[in-house]
Amino acid sequence: MVQNGVQYIIRLNMQRDGLPFRDIVQLVDDLGGDIIAWDLVRAEDQKTIRDLTVLMGTAEKLQTLVEKLSLLEGVTVENVSDRTFLMHLGGKIEIRPRVHIKTRADLSHVYTPGVARVVEAIAEDPAKAFQLTMKRNTVAIVTDGSAILGLGNRGPKAALPVMEGKAVLFKWLADVDAIPICLDTNDVDEIVETVVRIAPAFGGINLEDIAAPRCFEIERRLSERLDIPVFHDDQHGTAVVILAGLINAAKVVGKSLESLRIVIAGMGAAGTATTELLLHMGVRDIIGYDRVGAIVADKSYPGHPEWEQLAQKINPHRRQGSLKDLLSGADVFIGVSAANLLSPEDIQGMAPNAILFVMANPTPEIEPEIAQLYAKVVATGRSDYPNQINNVLCFPGFFRGVLDARAKRITVGMKVAAAYALASVVKDEELGPEYIIPSVFNREVSERIAKAVIQAAEKDNVARRSPKI
Amino acid sequence: MVQNGVQYIIRLNMQRDGLPFRDIVQLVDDLGGDIIAWDLVRAEDQKTIRDLTVLMGTAEKLQTLVEKLSLLEGVTVENVSDRTFLMHLGGKIEIRPRVHIKTRADLSHVYTPGVARVVEAIAEDPAKAFQLTMKRNTVAIVTDGSAILGLGNRGPKAALPVMEGKAVLFKWLADVDAIPICLDTNDVDEIVETVVRIAPAFGGINLEDIAAPRCFEIERRLSERLDIPVFHDDQHGTAVVILAGLINAAKVVGKSLESLRIVIAGMGAAGTATTELLLHMGVRDIIGYDRVGAIVADKSYPGHPEWEQLAQKINPHRRQGSLKDLLSGADVFIGVSAANLLSPEDIQGMAPNAILFVMANPTPEIEPEIAQLYAKVVATGRSDYPNQINNVLCFPGFFRGVLDARAKRITVGMKVAAAYALASVVKDEELGPEYIIPSVFNREVSERIAKAVIQAAEKDNVARRSPKI
Repeated sequence: MVQNGVQYIIRLNMQRDGLPFRDIVQLVDDLGGDIIAWDLVRAEDQKTIRDLTVLMGTAEKLQTLVEKLSLLEGVTVENVSDRTFLMHLGGKIEIRPRVHIKTRADLSHVYTPGVARVVEAIAEDPAKAFQLTMKRNTVAIVTDGSAILGLGNRGPKAALPVMEGKAVLFKWLADVDAIPICLDTNDVDEIVETVVRIAPAFGGINLEDIAAPRCFEIERRLSERLDIPVFHDDQHGTAVVILAGLINAAKVVGKSLESLRIVIAGMGAAGTATTELLLHMGVRDIIGYDRVGAIVADKSYPGHPEWEQLAQKINPHRRQGSLKDLLSGADVFIGVSAANLLSPEDIQGMAPNAILFVMANPTPEIEPEIAQLYAKVVATGRSDYPNQINNVLCFPGFFRGVLDARAKRITVGMKVAAAYALASVVKDEELGPEYIIPSVFNREVSERIAKAVIQAAEKDNVARRSPKI
Repeated sequence: MVQNGVQYIIRLNMQRDGLPFRDIVQLVDDLGGDIIAWDLVRAEDQKTIRDLTVLMGTAEKLQTLVEKLSLLEGVTVENVSDRTFLMHLGGKIEIRPRVHIKTRADLSHVYTPGVARVVEAIAEDPAKAFQLTMKRNTVAIVTDGSAILGLGNRGPKAALPVMEGKAVLFKWLADVDAIPICLDTNDVDEIVETVVRIAPAFGGINLEDIAAPRCFEIERRLSERLDIPVFHDDQHGTAVVILAGLINAAKVVGKSLESLRIVIAGMGAAGTATTELLLHMGVRDIIGYDRVGAIVADKSYPGHPEWEQLAQKINPHRRQGSLKDLLSGADVFIGVSAANLLSPEDIQGMAPNAILFVMANPTPEIEPEIAQLYAKVVATGRSDYPNQINNVLCFPGFFRGVLDARAKRITVGMKVAAAYALASVVKDEELGPEYIIPSVFNREVSERIAKAVIQAAEKDNVARRSPKI
């Protein structure tokens, strides 16, 4: 378990005589914090400047600590910085040359006049852009900033740190070059047109944090217009990881996937895509639940045409009622909704060996400690509980496969293959209620997913290339 | 002088006994080529595999060489590759993280949940994007591929190798992160709208290889719409480097800049911008020349509204006639036009100590060896003659300054300052007819330009930040 909190760096100017280390340790301890490091910045005649790195549970506790430190004799607080902000200073990614210019001859190969021949080769056969340019390995991470993390619409500039973070993960986990494209518009037509126009340099498009329901139309229209894959990660990345977790959870409880009765709460981007993928897997008894209650066929949902379509295929018994009613006898609850949606009473009536994926961020639908009293398998979106269902498990390896196969588009077969590959990283002998999904630090994950995606792309005839794997 | 030609790598399978090295050297020599390297790839029982790197003047000569090599006893040609193409394989740039993830704590700072606080900080104050994101150091290189090098319209994919090459130069010479954006449209409105929408992540826009005259309107409209600088390099980068060269060339011939009589041939993007910048410097007697002849006031030029405007400010004596007539008595010829435009007769009537900038690419307006017979100072766009007028001398340092000052827009003062800074790299005691402009390998160039641009941005009140310089 990792302790929650934020790391801060407090710069202290301390008189050299009688350094009150013991008092400081006590202060931090009393506030439930942890000292991570003490660093000497410089020593002067009468005083020393030191950086104290502490982990504190809340900003209020940090404030109290800073006030109490200031009251210590001979101590002045010079500055308080925050490790997260320090890591973001100046941005998190850079562009680096893959070729080096040392001589004039190098320059003439990389730039004029040599580059002219490469230009002509691509002009003659545009498919050569996959061999001779960044297109081979580069994905655009496109957002309009309208659904950033769980925070809502914060605009394109505020979305940038998230997209950069994602680019860091792409490179770190799968050697994919990803470029943040933050759009200053929320209009569906404008987003579609813009992405179509910037597409030539990219081998794939990762849509990110675009609000439902317009994310569905944007993805559909872009997929029709472009000859490179378009993948809305909040939908399909989440669906793939949930399916992988569910494949293993079903094994743990000894039930078949198809037989499961599933309630999905939160029918936004993630909930909708998960429902579609489970339907494709042969699961029949799925209930979609949102603020309007259970989604049922032949009812009108203004502003949600996708629910009206989906309703025709799910909830075969047209169940309605409270979440407690709907969960009665269900095998699985999948929550991609809101904090504290579930009470213990809601889940008490579920079938034996219930499976709960409570993934609301950062506070789950029910406290995992309580959920464990009523369910066999509990997964969350958090790193501080077992079974973290995290998109990072899918998108890097998925795009690695997409790029290596030079896929034209994404098929459902590629998503299913990715889910099985991810599930397979947990070996049968390791599998158990507290280990249904591997860690994001497991390097096998992206490799296995990439291979599976390549094979599925070939099988579905959307690969332009057959890499050796 | 660097020999012209292309480097090829010829893989030879040779019998071990009696290697015909001497014959091969002779073959290459007979065809006017150079052997650059012999590399042993592997040795087998009876044979050795070797890579022969040669510099050959033309593709035809390479073909002849390959045929003659195949005729040698015991030699088989296995493969011929081209060093330029090899350097472009897989693209020339990559995205690299500036932060490293080793622990789960790192992950939580760089991505969720920590990044949420950075998002909120920027949502509250969007200007913080300059501190906390890639915006601080990143430029978009935007093209529609309509005027690539001297090649014309080859489309957005074929433009990519040039834009990547430019990104390599940006990073290598000035630590600027530059991202190629190749647009799949030639429509002015669509280009403008697209760039406006993708602008949030960038600190500046470098327009590149967009055909005249629409490049003028695109730049003007983008500058009005955006709060970051927009700089069409083919116009202003060229103009800055030409002005720098002219400042030094005027010194060499002992004439004042303002007094010069100048003829500019080729009134596209570069010619027009150079004219504007020279007018700003107080040069009065400029004649613009294009396919239509000398551009004169009150004449109509369909498709070229910018000529009609410019004509009001130049050619005060309304001179017309052949290029020879126009050049009679002129001090300076600036060519950004086409190969072999000038004959010796055209330039014979120029004023004493004439200055010729013959920059048509790759073949100048007149052979530099011949030009030297009639002029005091000759400059070209080529690396194999003295005085190379090359945009690479300007754009990296220019954008370094723009980004460090967080400039809101580009002013003419910034361009003039850059030109003087560039000219100043050549010391007075070094200055001479064969050295009016520094080499692209001179590291002082980008530093001096960056400093000058920062100071000018502050003076012109377009800087958002005052870096220590």
